[in-house]
Amino acid sequence: MEWITIIGLMAGSLTTISFLPQAIKTWRSKSAKDISLAMFLCFCLGVVLWIIYGLFIMDIPVLVTNIVTLILAGTILFFKLKYK
Amino acid sequence: MEWITIIGLMAGSLTTISFLPQAIKTWRSKSAKDISLAMFLCFCLGVVLWIIYGLFIMDIPVLVTNIVTLILAGTILFFKLKYK
Repeated sequence: MEWITIIGLMAGSLTTISFLPQAIKTWRSKSAKDISLAMFLCFCLGVVLWIIYGLFIMDIPVLVTNIVTLILAGTILFFKLKYK
Repeated sequence: MEWITIIGLMAGSLTTISFLPQAIKTWRSKSAKDISLAMFLCFCLGVVLWIIYGLFIMDIPVLVTNIVTLILAGTILFFKLKYK
């Protein structure tokens, strides 16, 4: 595997997994006051469009990273709606 | 332009611009208690790697969306460090 492919995979892994600590933090604190509802609504809608795009171009990395991102960002959106 | 390209552009625009309402909210409230520092550190590092990746494959959409995302997410990271 070329090193630039490894950079790309690291980039995708980091931007995807970054939502995990936020989900854990919000779940533990039960507080989401400082989190922007508009951000997570807009972000989740964008990720849904990325998944539709990935399905049409049949690109596995686009699909897999965006499905994981949707699960994590969707969890934060759910917590925001639940805890306010 | 094909409609699937439009879906891809909308997806990229939404996931990029979603960080703007969070930056505005944190700037106004001067409160970032519920925001995860680990999320924004990890996310910004990932976006820096996306920019490096975009430079090497010379892909303008990857470069432009990630430079805008870095400015917005970097601003939120700065607010998190400033306002705690």
